[in-house]
Amino acid sequence: MKPFLNEDFLLETETAKSLYHNAAAKMPIIDYHCHLSPELIANDYQFKSITEAWLGGDHYKWRAMRANGIDESYITGDKTDEEKFDKWAQTVPYTMRNPLYHWTHLELQRYFGIADILNKQSATKIYDTASDLLQSRAYSVRNLLRKMNVKVVCTTDDPCDDLHFHQQLSKEGFEIPVLPAFRPDAAMNVDYAVNFNQYVGKLEKSGNVSISNFNDYIAALKSRHDYFDLNGCGVSDHGLEEIYAEDYTHSAIENIFDKIRVGKDISLYENRQFKSAMLVQFAEWDFEKNWVQQYHLGAIRNNNMRLQNILGADVGADSIGDFKQARSLSKFLNTLDERGHLAKTILYNLNPADNELFATMAGNFNDGKTIGKIQYGAAWWFLDQKDGMTKQINDLSNLGLLSRFVGMLTDSRSFLSFPRHEYFRRILCNLFGNEIENGELPNDVEWIQQMVSNICFNNAKEYFNF
Amino acid sequence: MKPFLNEDFLLETETAKSLYHNAAAKMPIIDYHCHLSPELIANDYQFKSITEAWLGGDHYKWRAMRANGIDESYITGDKTDEEKFDKWAQTVPYTMRNPLYHWTHLELQRYFGIADILNKQSATKIYDTASDLLQSRAYSVRNLLRKMNVKVVCTTDDPCDDLHFHQQLSKEGFEIPVLPAFRPDAAMNVDYAVNFNQYVGKLEKSGNVSISNFNDYIAALKSRHDYFDLNGCGVSDHGLEEIYAEDYTHSAIENIFDKIRVGKDISLYENRQFKSAMLVQFAEWDFEKNWVQQYHLGAIRNNNMRLQNILGADVGADSIGDFKQARSLSKFLNTLDERGHLAKTILYNLNPADNELFATMAGNFNDGKTIGKIQYGAAWWFLDQKDGMTKQINDLSNLGLLSRFVGMLTDSRSFLSFPRHEYFRRILCNLFGNEIENGELPNDVEWIQQMVSNICFNNAKEYFNF
Amino acid sequence: MKPFLNEDFLLETETAKSLYHNAAAKMPIIDYHCHLSPELIANDYQFKSITEAWLGGDHYKWRAMRANGIDESYITGDKTDEEKFDKWAQTVPYTMRNPLYHWTHLELQRYFGIADILNKQSATKIYDTASDLLQSRAYSVRNLLRKMNVKVVCTTDDPCDDLHFHQQLSKEGFEIPVLPAFRPDAAMNVDYAVNFNQYVGKLEKSGNVSISNFNDYIAALKSRHDYFDLNGCGVSDHGLEEIYAEDYTHSAIENIFDKIRVGKDISLYENRQFKSAMLVQFAEWDFEKNWVQQYHLGAIRNNNMRLQNILGADVGADSIGDFKQARSLSKFLNTLDERGHLAKTILYNLNPADNELFATMAGNFNDGKTIGKIQYGAAWWFLDQKDGMTKQINDLSNLGLLSRFVGMLTDSRSFLSFPRHEYFRRILCNLFGNEIENGELPNDVEWIQQMVSNICFNNAKEYFNF
Repeated sequence: MKPFLNEDFLLETETAKSLYHNAAAKMPIIDYHCHLSPELIANDYQFKSITEAWLGGDHYKWRAMRANGIDESYITGDKTDEEKFDKWAQTVPYTMRNPLYHWTHLELQRYFGIADILNKQSATKIYDTASDLLQSRAYSVRNLLRKMNVKVVCTTDDPCDDLHFHQQLSKEGFEIPVLPAFRPDAAMNVDYAVNFNQYVGKLEKSGNVSISNFNDYIAALKSRHDYFDLNGCGVSDHGLEEIYAEDYTHSAIENIFDKIRVGKDISLYENRQFKSAMLVQFAEWDFEKNWVQQYHLGAIRNNNMRLQNILGADVGADSIGDFKQARSLSKFLNTLDERGHLAKTILYNLNPADNELFATMAGNFNDGKTIGKIQYGAAWWFLDQKDGMTKQINDLSNLGLLSRFVGMLTDSRSFLSFPRHEYFRRILCNLFGNEIENGELPNDVEWIQQMVSNICFNNAKEYFNF
Repeated sequence: MKPFLNEDFLLETETAKSLYHNAAAKMPIIDYHCHLSPELIANDYQFKSITEAWLGGDHYKWRAMRANGIDESYITGDKTDEEKFDKWAQTVPYTMRNPLYHWTHLELQRYFGIADILNKQSATKIYDTASDLLQSRAYSVRNLLRKMNVKVVCTTDDPCDDLHFHQQLSKEGFEIPVLPAFRPDAAMNVDYAVNFNQYVGKLEKSGNVSISNFNDYIAALKSRHDYFDLNGCGVSDHGLEEIYAEDYTHSAIENIFDKIRVGKDISLYENRQFKSAMLVQFAEWDFEKNWVQQYHLGAIRNNNMRLQNILGADVGADSIGDFKQARSLSKFLNTLDERGHLAKTILYNLNPADNELFATMAGNFNDGKTIGKIQYGAAWWFLDQKDGMTKQINDLSNLGLLSRFVGMLTDSRSFLSFPRHEYFRRILCNLFGNEIENGELPNDVEWIQQMVSNICFNNAKEYFNF
Repeated sequence: MKPFLNEDFLLETETAKSLYHNAAAKMPIIDYHCHLSPELIANDYQFKSITEAWLGGDHYKWRAMRANGIDESYITGDKTDEEKFDKWAQTVPYTMRNPLYHWTHLELQRYFGIADILNKQSATKIYDTASDLLQSRAYSVRNLLRKMNVKVVCTTDDPCDDLHFHQQLSKEGFEIPVLPAFRPDAAMNVDYAVNFNQYVGKLEKSGNVSISNFNDYIAALKSRHDYFDLNGCGVSDHGLEEIYAEDYTHSAIENIFDKIRVGKDISLYENRQFKSAMLVQFAEWDFEKNWVQQYHLGAIRNNNMRLQNILGADVGADSIGDFKQARSLSKFLNTLDERGHLAKTILYNLNPADNELFATMAGNFNDGKTIGKIQYGAAWWFLDQKDGMTKQINDLSNLGLLSRFVGMLTDSRSFLSFPRHEYFRRILCNLFGNEIENGELPNDVEWIQQMVSNICFNNAKEYFNF
């Protein structure tokens, strides 16, 4: 009987333990895609309580609580931090076998040195201990990043963002670069003309320009792309149901833009053409600047209007979709590749039924020039758990080069989520350990340690231009 | 070398054995969805032979025999029971690694105390022993249910059914409630106007009403729904390729109904609109009565016209489909949720590529009021085997709350199929056992026993209103 | 610590070792579908170097090298064999966990007796040893086949092929039958009228006939089908994205043919109708001659126009698609089955998300006359690796009869690829071994050895008419 979550958690063989402790655990973290708030880092924020840090924005926990029959007032409502934490603590035993159970206890151990199991009985003690610590200097958000050996953070930012928190951090010389990422989802979303037109207004303001046609619009966005680049940005990101890859002409897109601006309806086909054109445009800029472009594909978001009406978007009512991905992904990547304009690209899928499709599609567009140019990205969101990570690692291994993988990212809003890098590394080392010990890989510890270190850190360091 | 199918079958660790024998095995069974015949229970039927009990309606075995090159006369034809059994016995060794191999030997052990392996050599002896036992009082169908510690049975019934067997059982005071389930598939199926119009006729007769328009039709169905409720029904069930969720108006549906009634063609879109309207209507009634609604999605049925022409529907020519499920499921559930009219719901998928989609979709519509309100249902039909159950349990665990799962059901026509509850329980305990012993879960035996007992029985008891 | 790739590679239990060494390893090979060159066999070709044998046409290795940042000149370009091999050797350590790592070292061991690990350091020595051996008589392509105990080879041939290499081999009495397979993909591909019309020209020449309408076209193809049959062909093969199963009339197809012939555009629907008609036609001929028809479904090919423009088709830019498969597969098989004209059929899927769909669809059309008539085919192409094979074997086991499986094939262009039969057999024996030892199967070694031998060889021998 192995103790729960001890130092050899998830490591089944001696080889795995050695790989993890001697190689993986020592590597720093490049968190090349996350949703941390640059404002909180700039202000070196201190959380008021473990409730604020844990439940403030974590829709994973919200979903679990709702499923557990906890009233919304204890989730996103007006109950006190203590009351909310209590309900979460009550829910934790019910999350066994869900990744939340592991995240929760890993975070308690790694950040707070609390090895107790969280439940109704231990709730008050843990609440007090963790909340107290969070108010100490050592638990400011910058110190949380330092504690986890983070070397780079890439946030996720709208093109209109003025990036002044990033600038402030840079000027100040905070030793961990906090870099923006260009995420123009709103700039291509023409599903609701009102929202889009508001966005155009926001862009005009942000760029201090006037936009009267599509070419103005593109020029304004391009200028934001340039601005991001000047501010250290080296990655873009796109959160989409699918890649749009309709044929279009420039004049058709100008036309569609004009229609939207004057409130005329556009067809579904025009909608898709517009998005297709924007995706190619963004990709061209990414290529020009040698950025890495990321595509997170396959979520079906905001399914619950009742919650959205109360709480807004992204509140834990998202799920995995079943969009057709292969043909449009192929067409999009090929269009850019044929022009010689395909930037380094990471493809993330949310439906694990598409793992193999994505892994093989990535392999079609490597060019023999950039090592691991087209990456099949890490297990993401709902898949960011042991089975999901294992399947992604195995599928990448079987269908591509695991050795060239840029590895894990948190994709998280939480400053306490960095132990999932550890989680990933343990799983990775365990897979290697098993295969070495059972004769599926040679016992070449030196090389495999090197490979593990590369996947944990070095590959990302080489791949991104930070 | 562990003996085949001994008392620790599928239990790999001491912890798993303890969980199974001390908790899971002791729990009774609520079979909240099956296809048992209420008539046979009402008559306390005795099977004439093991052939009748096993091969009479089991299209799993039929498929296996056809694949094994057995002539149809020995499967569904006019050969004697002995001859048919002999061919099945010959086929059994060829089913190794198919769930039929486990079901067959579990059933022989649990019901008949026969630990022999079934094959050509043992066929006659086993046939005689089992058939003799079946003719003894202890093997009447009610006694078979008692033997398996079944506490509730929900059959599957057409709205037109008069439920007199259920009533008879209820009046008689049979100690195991045998409750109807409302399955209105035929009432919304407008693919063949002739069949639909026949169905309307049947409904008129059943409700002793005259139906001259859509509102009459709905009123007649509503009255059946009420009638089922009065007769103890608390669940509905729908066997569909996909959820239909087209937009429609009431008058459009009235119109479509009228067209069908006079034999006019309807378009595919109208077909889907009609089905969409019916699904919402049924769901509204389920909500009003606090029933649990179940959706079994994704089968593509009756693929083989040769067999259908000879034997009719549901004769072992069904398979797993690849229907788009996410958007319509989302729209349907959201429509009801927004109105505050979403009943407790169980979503079952047949294509395992959709497991994660379904598990995450369920999580979008919990309301923090009813514990485990939207359930991601058990592995079903083709997936009702070790790998399928394991994947369903793991996917539910990763993406929802396994602890709140209402657990297993037989979904079977066979009175001998109850050991698949045992099978499920063994797999469940084994997963917990492994994770406790390897340090992925704390060794909190008391709580995990509780959780196991809940999944095996208590959760269903709480969830359903029996 | 088990040594890498020793005699018990992939065999975890004593039972598995015994099954493999006493049964599986002893069986000869029927390679019922591959892409070996009949010309090279006819000429009993000797490879000039291990580079030619390994990198000459292996797009799996090309993809890996491109992903590893190797310039195309070392992959398909004009570098020397030594230079190319060196780059491949450099890449090999980066392929750990990819099947290439296992294939590479299995092939070195089995063909060349080289147990060294291939990497930069060992490259020259291994290049020299293997290349020298390849130039010895014992390594002519015929001797490579003999070394692997191959009993039958089925190549893959266009209907226009004159099969003179097959004839030469037959006349000569080469003891391993090298039989053609009828692969009429080009004959039904009307995506590009120019290519199709060229194909019609080629067919006219090949059959020495004049084709002025669709009926002529069919007659000419039929005559090629007959010709293949006379030359020992007993299998057809189709490499398609999906089965086409549109409704059509003969006159509509005649019309479509005429349109293409005079350069008129056809609609997507007409395109699909034409393909649908051709598939049924080919299947009818396959039935008449009692051939086995094979369908390889689901690849999305030639995604990279840059590579295609330089290197042509099939150069390592293919991937797994997400086509809808269920309905058309059902309709196509049913159409033939209803007529009583469904030939023995093997269905292969490339997207593993479709495994269960395919396995269950196969089960719908068995007829109780031919054992294992409709086969769910082996893991193919990208899935031809440990996880892919394991999943195919498990899915077939769960949803059909593994015992009746016709087993593995190489589907390869390489004369060095036969160890993947060994690989498959080891995986198969390991699965049985584990389940026997853990009590999921009875310890009936005699029967399970028989079953293993059947899957490795006997079933294919019975199923095909060679």
